[in-house]
Amino acid sequence: MMRPTTLESPPLRHLLTIDGLSRTQIVSILDLAESFLPVGERAVKKVPLLRGKTVVNLFFEPSTRTRMTFELAAKRLSADVLNLEVGTSSTRKGETLLDTLQNLEAMQMDMLVVRHAESGAADFFARYAAPHVSVLNAGDGRHAHPTQALLDMFTIRRHKREFTTLSVAIVGDVAHSRVARSQIHALRILGVPDIRVVAPRTLLPAAIESLGVHVFPRLEPALRDCDVVIALRLQRERMQGTQLPSENEYFRHYGVDAARLRLARPDAIVMHPGPINRNVEIASAVADGPQSVILEQVTNGIAVRMAVMAEVLGRAPARAMTA
Amino acid sequence: MMRPTTLESPPLRHLLTIDGLSRTQIVSILDLAESFLPVGERAVKKVPLLRGKTVVNLFFEPSTRTRMTFELAAKRLSADVLNLEVGTSSTRKGETLLDTLQNLEAMQMDMLVVRHAESGAADFFARYAAPHVSVLNAGDGRHAHPTQALLDMFTIRRHKREFTTLSVAIVGDVAHSRVARSQIHALRILGVPDIRVVAPRTLLPAAIESLGVHVFPRLEPALRDCDVVIALRLQRERMQGTQLPSENEYFRHYGVDAARLRLARPDAIVMHPGPINRNVEIASAVADGPQSVILEQVTNGIAVRMAVMAEVLGRAPARAMTA
Amino acid sequence: MMRPTTLESPPLRHLLTIDGLSRTQIVSILDLAESFLPVGERAVKKVPLLRGKTVVNLFFEPSTRTRMTFELAAKRLSADVLNLEVGTSSTRKGETLLDTLQNLEAMQMDMLVVRHAESGAADFFARYAAPHVSVLNAGDGRHAHPTQALLDMFTIRRHKREFTTLSVAIVGDVAHSRVARSQIHALRILGVPDIRVVAPRTLLPAAIESLGVHVFPRLEPALRDCDVVIALRLQRERMQGTQLPSENEYFRHYGVDAARLRLARPDAIVMHPGPINRNVEIASAVADGPQSVILEQVTNGIAVRMAVMAEVLGRAPARAMTA
Repeated sequence: MMRPTTLESPPLRHLLTIDGLSRTQIVSILDLAESFLPVGERAVKKVPLLRGKTVVNLFFEPSTRTRMTFELAAKRLSADVLNLEVGTSSTRKGETLLDTLQNLEAMQMDMLVVRHAESGAADFFARYAAPHVSVLNAGDGRHAHPTQALLDMFTIRRHKREFTTLSVAIVGDVAHSRVARSQIHALRILGVPDIRVVAPRTLLPAAIESLGVHVFPRLEPALRDCDVVIALRLQRERMQGTQLPSENEYFRHYGVDAARLRLARPDAIVMHPGPINRNVEIASAVADGPQSVILEQVTNGIAVRMAVMAEVLGRAPARAMTA
Repeated sequence: MMRPTTLESPPLRHLLTIDGLSRTQIVSILDLAESFLPVGERAVKKVPLLRGKTVVNLFFEPSTRTRMTFELAAKRLSADVLNLEVGTSSTRKGETLLDTLQNLEAMQMDMLVVRHAESGAADFFARYAAPHVSVLNAGDGRHAHPTQALLDMFTIRRHKREFTTLSVAIVGDVAHSRVARSQIHALRILGVPDIRVVAPRTLLPAAIESLGVHVFPRLEPALRDCDVVIALRLQRERMQGTQLPSENEYFRHYGVDAARLRLARPDAIVMHPGPINRNVEIASAVADGPQSVILEQVTNGIAVRMAVMAEVLGRAPARAMTA
Repeated sequence: MMRPTTLESPPLRHLLTIDGLSRTQIVSILDLAESFLPVGERAVKKVPLLRGKTVVNLFFEPSTRTRMTFELAAKRLSADVLNLEVGTSSTRKGETLLDTLQNLEAMQMDMLVVRHAESGAADFFARYAAPHVSVLNAGDGRHAHPTQALLDMFTIRRHKREFTTLSVAIVGDVAHSRVARSQIHALRILGVPDIRVVAPRTLLPAAIESLGVHVFPRLEPALRDCDVVIALRLQRERMQGTQLPSENEYFRHYGVDAARLRLARPDAIVMHPGPINRNVEIASAVADGPQSVILEQVTNGIAVRMAVMAEVLGRAPARAMTA
């Protein structure tokens, strides 16, 4: 767990977005995650690193998978975990977000894992958090989902080793996807030279090229000689008011199926943040096929979240001194 | 915890149904449960046997009592427990059962406790489970509820010692009862010579005699000289479309009351899987009377579930080697 | 943790109401809480006092904050915690309260934390609880909320040291407030000579003076030279059928704002049981101002609840002998 900290990459306090992280910071988390990966394979899947810490999962938006992997990460680090699922509408008898934060701090929580339908919610909590509290963004609106991007980078690195020679295709609803946004930032920071984005025009954000990606209106050319294919989830619940093609039509044009996958490099890997819509974003045969690393992503997600938690809680000198 | 394993009774990997278990296997679990019973009486109700294991309670059908006793059993074995209550309708954004299983496996769960309204759900999970994962059926449709039957056998054995001389009466809605089905299998395997089933014709399955039981249309003759009386819960929620008598009428004909109980042996015990409908299946005075062992069943349920968990996780040689 | 126990103050078994506690008993809990307060500041916020105990949070009425602080208190004492949120309407497939209690006892719970919309619910559970089970009232109807009153006394003592010279003003909906009732009992037992109650006539119970308080129809005179100002929450959900002024009107007459607070002593503290309705019971500037100890109350609440749990579980000789 010892690692060089340079002036350019101070230890992380929060993890809110990928944008703004240094290459060193990302690599440091991936290396730490590598050391946590075997914990999940052991008979006793537990290390005492966060024993006696209080981690609060504050989910304003339901997400079984993300909540469970954060909860497992915290428990495998021996933390005490409190789950708090809050309907955005009721917001706890009219309490403001700030009151919620301050009350959780008064309960001496050490870490807040927050998911919210509004972009910027995690930043809000971080801006007002007490000095000893770390905030982890578990997805906010269309903005960012940084632990998802980190686990994706971790998964790519385990298969491809070098980022600086890769071609990566991101397929699907980029406009509504905080996952895509965070992935693109991470890929760029890690030096991926060729990032391709494929989506119907209605699912593309306006100035997407400014992020340094190549836009492809059609899937086939985008897949050609790719090393990594990432299919995004069709976020039906976030697409009200947009002109969405039918699922059949979407699959016909943008579904990653076996025939199209043959356009990519033979050793290309296929990723998806889950849960998958079979035969909508991805053909079942591909999701379950030899090139799919979708379930590895889930496993890696726990190791990466353990690493982020260890990273932010290992940082504070004040905390360390009271230890 | 050392016990002889013979060729006829390989160590259990899953517990899906009672049917097919050997007498040795059942007795082995009951013996193990006997050793766990004192844990619940201790000041520190905990043993480290499953420390660092991940147990997932996946309940597609709500059941406070069963979920709590499985959760307590796992926690008293020092496992980490994740509760997942899933409305059958939503099924997590349309994810298939198989995807759910594979995602939980990717999270490195060791044991899946599953309850589902459809018969065969636990078998489905077991059929597709990875080699290191054990599946425990916590009730599936009308099919089976094996831990309930085991805790019932455990309770009977603590009071009656020998199974091979007993007369047992099972009273009530046999047709919709996975509990009754599992009980009948267990009683037969343990050598109970006289199993009596009492129910109105509409609540009797077609070929019930083929299970080796004697059918009684009326309660009184069925209770005569019985050693054990098991009242079943009226499963109103599972009886849509059947011709159900009113609760008053049901109690008049099939309710276990004090007068009828006098027909049984003086030392007969009265059981019920709970939660009881007072003065429907059973008179309040009987439920709370000296012959009732209904609350003992709850206590025993934790010890039996601990035993089943220890049994299935103690089994795998591959697991043991990585320990 | 060693403390003198006298004949007049036997060790507590349950905590149901403040009324009837001796000064010695209350001071003993506050002293114990003082010893738990540093636990929340430590790197490892955990002591092993209740390891292997089973604490059940049985909430028939939702309350995120109270449930969380009880859960954290139990977890920081190393207990195993089970949360059970029960809609009052369904009451678990028609099971009676008594059946619920007996089933939880059969699961060998050691402590029941209960919240219920009906006054007397906690007393009911305590009356029928098995000898080894302790019941803590987490709020029952309009009756009592004793741990809230104890944490309030703890907070007052940390700021004011002596109770016997204090003037305390309680402002707001006294009629529907179990908090106010418990506070008044506690203040009287601790020897506070001047307890003032301020509320519109419709929010005052009939015989409130019999509790030994002075009633003020207007806020300003009640605040004059006060040491402690306690604003109560407007319990809209409990006020159906009463003539409630609008929130604006309420604030105009009874809101604790900066101008009015200047009538109190310069070192007066401002308290609120939370969650606050900003600019209804209390001005935002006051809630967040230097005299507010509202968030300290939350922190103290965990230490006080740890103390109560340690107190009631430390009591039983039978328990101690099996330890």
